[in-house]
Amino acid sequence: MKKVAVRNAFYAQSGGVSAVINASACGVIETALRSKHIGKVYAGRDGIIGALTEDLIDVGRESGATIRGLKHTPGGAFGSARFKLKGIEQNRTEYERLIEVFRAHDIGYFFYNGGNDSMDTALKVSQLGAALGFPITCVGVPKTVDNDLPHTDCCPGFGSVAKYVAVSTREAALDVASMARTSTKVFVLEVMGRHAGWIAAAGGLAGNGPSEPPHLILFPEVPFERERFLARVREAVDDCGYCVVVVSEGAAYADGKFLAEAGTRDAFGHTQLGGVGPVVANMVREAHGYKYHWAVADYLQRSARHIASRVDVEQAYAVGKAAVELAVRGVNAVMPTIVRKAHRPYRWSIGHVPLAEVANKEKKLPPDYIREDGFGITAACRRYLEPLVAGESYPPYRNGLPDYVRLRAVPVRRKLKGNFKV
Amino acid sequence: MKKVAVRNAFYAQSGGVSAVINASACGVIETALRSKHIGKVYAGRDGIIGALTEDLIDVGRESGATIRGLKHTPGGAFGSARFKLKGIEQNRTEYERLIEVFRAHDIGYFFYNGGNDSMDTALKVSQLGAALGFPITCVGVPKTVDNDLPHTDCCPGFGSVAKYVAVSTREAALDVASMARTSTKVFVLEVMGRHAGWIAAAGGLAGNGPSEPPHLILFPEVPFERERFLARVREAVDDCGYCVVVVSEGAAYADGKFLAEAGTRDAFGHTQLGGVGPVVANMVREAHGYKYHWAVADYLQRSARHIASRVDVEQAYAVGKAAVELAVRGVNAVMPTIVRKAHRPYRWSIGHVPLAEVANKEKKLPPDYIREDGFGITAACRRYLEPLVAGESYPPYRNGLPDYVRLRAVPVRRKLKGNFKV
Repeated sequence: MKKVAVRNAFYAQSGGVSAVINASACGVIETALRSKHIGKVYAGRDGIIGALTEDLIDVGRESGATIRGLKHTPGGAFGSARFKLKGIEQNRTEYERLIEVFRAHDIGYFFYNGGNDSMDTALKVSQLGAALGFPITCVGVPKTVDNDLPHTDCCPGFGSVAKYVAVSTREAALDVASMARTSTKVFVLEVMGRHAGWIAAAGGLAGNGPSEPPHLILFPEVPFERERFLARVREAVDDCGYCVVVVSEGAAYADGKFLAEAGTRDAFGHTQLGGVGPVVANMVREAHGYKYHWAVADYLQRSARHIASRVDVEQAYAVGKAAVELAVRGVNAVMPTIVRKAHRPYRWSIGHVPLAEVANKEKKLPPDYIREDGFGITAACRRYLEPLVAGESYPPYRNGLPDYVRLRAVPVRRKLKGNFKV
Repeated sequence: MKKVAVRNAFYAQSGGVSAVINASACGVIETALRSKHIGKVYAGRDGIIGALTEDLIDVGRESGATIRGLKHTPGGAFGSARFKLKGIEQNRTEYERLIEVFRAHDIGYFFYNGGNDSMDTALKVSQLGAALGFPITCVGVPKTVDNDLPHTDCCPGFGSVAKYVAVSTREAALDVASMARTSTKVFVLEVMGRHAGWIAAAGGLAGNGPSEPPHLILFPEVPFERERFLARVREAVDDCGYCVVVVSEGAAYADGKFLAEAGTRDAFGHTQLGGVGPVVANMVREAHGYKYHWAVADYLQRSARHIASRVDVEQAYAVGKAAVELAVRGVNAVMPTIVRKAHRPYRWSIGHVPLAEVANKEKKLPPDYIREDGFGITAACRRYLEPLVAGESYPPYRNGLPDYVRLRAVPVRRKLKGNFKV
């Protein structure tokens, strides 16, 4: 009988969290705990910082029910971090420290759940580990609500934000439509996506064509032209009685200046108080005098597990599971991807791509997803988006509120002396 | 055999709409269509304006499925209006016109679905009808997300906003908690309720006591003290690592000045650009320098049928049904109320109160519902709120989005000559 080499696994969450990043954690952990190649499963407290500071959580000390519950719990249960490791040339110390901690805890598998930056980090860890004579299998687990990772049909986290934005736009539009005759005529919803318009595009699912809300979408990919926009708002109000606008936080003028920077100041003249939502709403009021309302969904959109897309939850779990399966097969420095096999009925499978191919790259909304007038989505975009928001995956409720799990988060005993300052 | 007098019924929606006002419409309409005392059921297009302009919708021309679908459709399906009739002394013409239209269409029952102002209107119509020799039975159907109607334990519309706010606060707090170490430390959620803190209080359901988010709630009922607030924010960040604040749009200083008025201006110095959310967030940044985020839920909160409270939906339907049952029994100038019979398990029934008792009155959050420090809710408040957010009542979905109904809205043939200008 062949002896199986058993090593421990480390999992960490990175960057902005989502409604389903914990579903990926669940996929990684359940699969790792079952694997005969993997001994202990550890997680970094507050992401990679937990690894640097040797602050590890012993995942095996959580109950099976808690681990299962991660699948329906939003946010980053282990803590995430906005902490980008510098290039190896600039800060070799951090990478060496990671390897030191991994060596101390016999960690042979590194699962890093994040976006573009994180894939870069995972790649570097795998390279440096080999160079330092401590081979470690590094697999990225894709996560970003921005949907801007290349080589994957979509990114876990996006489908649920998309569903939230589409549902919210449809609901708020019904509200505005009911009251437009005597009250609010223009409603502006600000959504996330600083560099790519994927989330804004999802607002387009709320209606069917330019006569249904949202009447106008402002994408980061389309340079904002004030007069053209204001004319279209007036047109919508004249034709439909009201106008619903979905605006991406990344909407910008042709010179690259964000709309959000363009105006808001507090009474003391400090800038950057408001977001783009109020800026756009105010622009409409000044030009046309319409009564307006605006909403800024902010974190509500990316934490809204209560209205998560079932497809998204399933894909988030699947990439976590696949990451472990790839790793124990010895496939190193890759990221599982979602492969679309058919639009309708929607069929997908899991593929994988070298980390080097995804690290630090960004996927924008393709031009043929944006309507010719620049204010809406095309049929191709709708065909792409629709399957990603399909299905509901309701969390359990207790006393009227979602019953989200909380970890015991038992720390692993430290083996190294001294503290590492991050 | 006694002959039953059959007369037509008129229903209208009034004021800001909610996630469940159409559920009340459904209760009124289904009950009225079944009643042997009621002939045709008409609705005002855009609320009372539809009555004034003789723009009536023939509800009998909708399918049973559409009427049933109102129960899960947010917004005001018939159109609502922010249109307060003046006092009879100031504008007798409008009231006389209403009676003229009702007489032309043999409308013997007037169901007015709204808040305090609307109850006043319904009362006046009943009084003037009698004075003009056209007896009409007027029954109010309570609706307000603000929960500020007196003599009813709660108001249909409130439970669903409360659930939305509690769920959103819990979800966003998980997001902030995950990332606070390296990113956002303070999150501010602005909610509705200009005069009463009921909606803000609902945010308190997200956690249990001052160490769980929301760490601070700012009520309209508690005069805002900048220094005390800022000290508590710092305390929360020191103790918990982050701070979640729920602020009512009605939060104000001791002199009555709204926080929202206090600061925001655009680059041109125009005031009233932002809401109170960004004002509070900015105040924290200036004092402590913490990274912050803020969200303004605005219409999203009151149209969020996807996360409606089941109790709220049931009560909204029940008050609509009761309104018709009272009217056909000849009970005039009343409003059905929700009567709480037990907290836990929650039991309620329908009562009623004279319109004169509710018209133009406002119910604030009682002092014993606000924690002594002014920043949270008490156990009594929790006991009151919890049953109101209980249960889910999911709408049906199609292609990943809620399948909300749309009316045919077939107009009733006009009988009067000339137009009435509103």
